[in-house]
Amino acid sequence: MSTKRIGKQTVILAAPPSIIGSASIAGKKEGEGPLAHSFDYICEDSYFGEKSWEKAESSLQKLAFAHALDKAKLSPSELDYIFAGDLLNQCTASAFAMRDSNVPFFGLYGACSTMAEGLSLGAIMIDGGYADKVCALTSSHYCSAERQFRLPLEYGGQRTPTAQWTATAAGACILSSQGNGPYITHLTVGRIRDAGVTDSSNMGAAMAQAAYETLTAHFSDLGVQPSHYDLIVTGDLGLIGQSIIMDFFMRDGIDIAPVYDDCGLLLYSREEQDVHAGGSGCGCSAAVLCGWLLDGMRSGRWNRLLFAGTGALMSPTSVNQGESIPGICHAVAISNAKG
Amino acid sequence: MSTKRIGKQTVILAAPPSIIGSASIAGKKEGEGPLAHSFDYICEDSYFGEKSWEKAESSLQKLAFAHALDKAKLSPSELDYIFAGDLLNQCTASAFAMRDSNVPFFGLYGACSTMAEGLSLGAIMIDGGYADKVCALTSSHYCSAERQFRLPLEYGGQRTPTAQWTATAAGACILSSQGNGPYITHLTVGRIRDAGVTDSSNMGAAMAQAAYETLTAHFSDLGVQPSHYDLIVTGDLGLIGQSIIMDFFMRDGIDIAPVYDDCGLLLYSREEQDVHAGGSGCGCSAAVLCGWLLDGMRSGRWNRLLFAGTGALMSPTSVNQGESIPGICHAVAISNAKG
Repeated sequence: MSTKRIGKQTVILAAPPSIIGSASIAGKKEGEGPLAHSFDYICEDSYFGEKSWEKAESSLQKLAFAHALDKAKLSPSELDYIFAGDLLNQCTASAFAMRDSNVPFFGLYGACSTMAEGLSLGAIMIDGGYADKVCALTSSHYCSAERQFRLPLEYGGQRTPTAQWTATAAGACILSSQGNGPYITHLTVGRIRDAGVTDSSNMGAAMAQAAYETLTAHFSDLGVQPSHYDLIVTGDLGLIGQSIIMDFFMRDGIDIAPVYDDCGLLLYSREEQDVHAGGSGCGCSAAVLCGWLLDGMRSGRWNRLLFAGTGALMSPTSVNQGESIPGICHAVAISNAKG
Repeated sequence: MSTKRIGKQTVILAAPPSIIGSASIAGKKEGEGPLAHSFDYICEDSYFGEKSWEKAESSLQKLAFAHALDKAKLSPSELDYIFAGDLLNQCTASAFAMRDSNVPFFGLYGACSTMAEGLSLGAIMIDGGYADKVCALTSSHYCSAERQFRLPLEYGGQRTPTAQWTATAAGACILSSQGNGPYITHLTVGRIRDAGVTDSSNMGAAMAQAAYETLTAHFSDLGVQPSHYDLIVTGDLGLIGQSIIMDFFMRDGIDIAPVYDDCGLLLYSREEQDVHAGGSGCGCSAAVLCGWLLDGMRSGRWNRLLFAGTGALMSPTSVNQGESIPGICHAVAISNAKG
């Protein structure tokens, strides 16, 4: 096996790509939460000036793209590839957002792990010498997701306590072969794991097993403890998934709590905002990473971050047909140092 | 820019991955067509022994995976990565098919270009030294697609002459750093192109512009004429898209007809099978490639193949909201020689 791989599942990037620009855009509710100061733009209008929530989501993703390029001082024509995906059927939020970008495009489907998946593939393209500059981006919108996955908003259905709130948010990250960091240094690509959970209002529980296994593989492959990182964030297990994964690690004799958090719990105030088990949606972990987390790395608050995107690979049809909910988790190590 | 790139958009693989196993599985109708002899298995039952067409599609994809591994003499544990996607909402055919594979998984959404997208990313993982063995696979199912994208089958709606028939088929391709070919030598990753077509029963027209531009970029980047290849196949433009792309090339003074064909036209007999403008669906180009085309390369019928997967990046929602249909095309050059 190549020297670019270590252990069972982890890739070491010998020429770690630098994150030279990142942007996060949020909706009104997200803009009322504790991370409000970290967003590049907060839109009060859930339609983002468009005629449908699906078009609004494309608009949201376009804004993240434009802001990230602006911060990286690049024009779209300087990008070699875009990696994007979202939760809408046939990933149309991304396709329509990037339709006019004129950049070679890889469409992804990783549910809420999409930002981690795009960062992984984008980083490999740069580390391997296939690209100089790449953008990874994704979005989600509460209103487009709710009516697609659950019920018409007008119905006003009651949510169960384990349900998560799909964030109206987008994040975009520009990677480059040159730059002053933060750098993407290691990747652990996840396997699909099915814990047998059939309740689509309890995605945190469905994804916890996948997150636990990817993180365990990552620590084992690199021979490190969780304390190697200043911060480990999953995105998005929410309250239920977070308690499950901490419990799994406790059984291994490892207390990850001192360095662990979850994007779904960071995005909203659970006391003041009615989001039940926390946030979710591709845009949740993407916006938390591209704003608050990367800002914190740039300011030196954290030097080593492990960003573990988690996705629930289900559809309303699969749930209605009685299938359980497979989960996946991809971990991306980001460091202020190149090594 | 890296020496791994040539021209505007094309990647040269210095260590071309070898296709060491490929398999194609087809449904009853596809098994009655001209390529019947090239399928590894033809299933007479549209349910593939399952209780729903969506589960049938996962079963179909699992069969392609198992047959391809068998022909490559590998177990799933020897694979480093799987790249898979499909047309079902949230790509569940792939997620459920690969749920038990225990292989690190990248979910893709490229509509009918998925096989070309998976081959592109898989080939880069191997060429770059990040993997030794990778599987790219995809599927489509007439019945699961029809009821998701169009109308309930029971309705018996009449189809327009420009409509294409979603193939019930799957293809899987195993790439390896070692092997005796055929080899993947070059990749041209496409940009999203929107020709303004709003008729979702005319996807060939919607995708033709993207296919034309990717092929033109490929020829220009490599400084070759279409006649450089023994065969250039798009997948799947069908009858309408094929005539449009040939017309576009004619305007450039290039007659691609002698070396050009389309997977959507190869899979069915238009005289004897009622498929209107031809086949489509992720499984169409995948099954034609993984069976008839790669068999023809192995037998020496063709030595240089350009496989150009084409996808229409729309959803029923985007069409109902009046959006036009963006297209994409990724071209993969496959050769019996390494260079």
